[in-house]
Amino acid sequence: MSASFGKSVLITGSSRGIGLQLVKELAKSSNRPATIIATARNPTGSVDLQELSKTYPGVHIVTLDVDSQQSISSAVEEVQSIVRNNGLNCLINNAAIGLLTDINTVTPEAMMENFQVNSVAPLFVTKAFLPLLQTAAAQSTGMGLHRAAVINMSSILGSITQNWGEGAIYKNYSYRTSKAALNMVTRCLATDLGSDGILCMSLHPGWVKTDMGGPDADLTVEESVSGLLAVLSNLTDKDHGGFKDYRGENIPW
Amino acid sequence: MSASFGKSVLITGSSRGIGLQLVKELAKSSNRPATIIATARNPTGSVDLQELSKTYPGVHIVTLDVDSQQSISSAVEEVQSIVRNNGLNCLINNAAIGLLTDINTVTPEAMMENFQVNSVAPLFVTKAFLPLLQTAAAQSTGMGLHRAAVINMSSILGSITQNWGEGAIYKNYSYRTSKAALNMVTRCLATDLGSDGILCMSLHPGWVKTDMGGPDADLTVEESVSGLLAVLSNLTDKDHGGFKDYRGENIPW
Repeated sequence: MSASFGKSVLITGSSRGIGLQLVKELAKSSNRPATIIATARNPTGSVDLQELSKTYPGVHIVTLDVDSQQSISSAVEEVQSIVRNNGLNCLINNAAIGLLTDINTVTPEAMMENFQVNSVAPLFVTKAFLPLLQTAAAQSTGMGLHRAAVINMSSILGSITQNWGEGAIYKNYSYRTSKAALNMVTRCLATDLGSDGILCMSLHPGWVKTDMGGPDADLTVEESVSGLLAVLSNLTDKDHGGFKDYRGENIPW
Repeated sequence: MSASFGKSVLITGSSRGIGLQLVKELAKSSNRPATIIATARNPTGSVDLQELSKTYPGVHIVTLDVDSQQSISSAVEEVQSIVRNNGLNCLINNAAIGLLTDINTVTPEAMMENFQVNSVAPLFVTKAFLPLLQTAAAQSTGMGLHRAAVINMSSILGSITQNWGEGAIYKNYSYRTSKAALNMVTRCLATDLGSDGILCMSLHPGWVKTDMGGPDADLTVEESVSGLLAVLSNLTDKDHGGFKDYRGENIPW
């Protein structure tokens, strides 16, 4: 990991899986952001997260249910009191759900729920933290995590292009549509926030052995997060509005 | 228009705009499908549609609120009694809403409503009519409207690739995400229904002077529909899983 992380990073959905590992790796890193804000819907339920915040300085736990506007507002106030005039350098919209829905089992309710948590929530979390991101962006130049960024944790399953042939073997209507919609949100945000110097992009973490990815997945969470952090720390204006995987390779929309 | 239309076509949202014009042009055509089923949420409210069904034989009006599972089920029964053993050759998912939402005005409710009507409803309308489409597909070979097809009326605004630079001038979070999600639905359906011989694709009608498109749009509804029908009547297996505009040009996802 190079030295291009800013002063602060906030990660949603960090009680387990990729979110938890991002917090852990960042906290252990020698050139880490001073302030690491780990949010979760129910952070007291994650022993691992509690342990991390006790072990490493500057790891703050904030309660955030991305699906509740009230919870989002409270979290913004709390984060404001942590980062103060520095603002927030990086928001990682990582919280997500993965319902299993093929053509036979998909329901309107599953479609709506997956869309709400995976596509709508990241937009409104970003809108709520925008003043803090703008505060950070105003203190620097260029583009990257040293300045300000919104990282949407997407999936190759959200690639409409790749959902064909071998890429279409994994069937899932609700998850795939929610991640394609999230990619459109990324692109809309990139258009709107680029002039503020806020980099916006979608990332695919790989297929990872987590509760969501299951035991047959390709990657350990350590491998995925190691790659993701390498990609994140090297982001430049060329990545703005893009879609990359954990190895830094571009994914078609 | 070539002679490749099948025996029956069903068009949702046909009380006005592009849907109404599709019904009108098909009804007038010399090599038309014998059965044209025009559905709308409130068909009695459309004088134009009532007039068409009186003027042209084989134009059937069926009440269908695409947002109501009960309404969908009733419509399927009614359509079954019209098409009988021939099944349904072509379903055009045209009904849609266009909420105006930029980064300042977008709300979670607008995101959810646009997604429900423009992305979820076409999936569940398609699922409900699937037995009728399969019945038609079983009676023919090859791919195209002579056999069986699901046409999702999408928009270039749903192209994530094109939402950049000049293509990003028109800002709309809820409509753009709903159409990107619909394109993913198209691609999932194409994967699942291709082996049944049911062609699935997304179409972009152009920017059309309708209630939704407004008076400043590029195209008259006549120009758009003339192009759409030319594209539809020439569909082959090469178009399966694709995204084309009213001129037959491919649009990137």
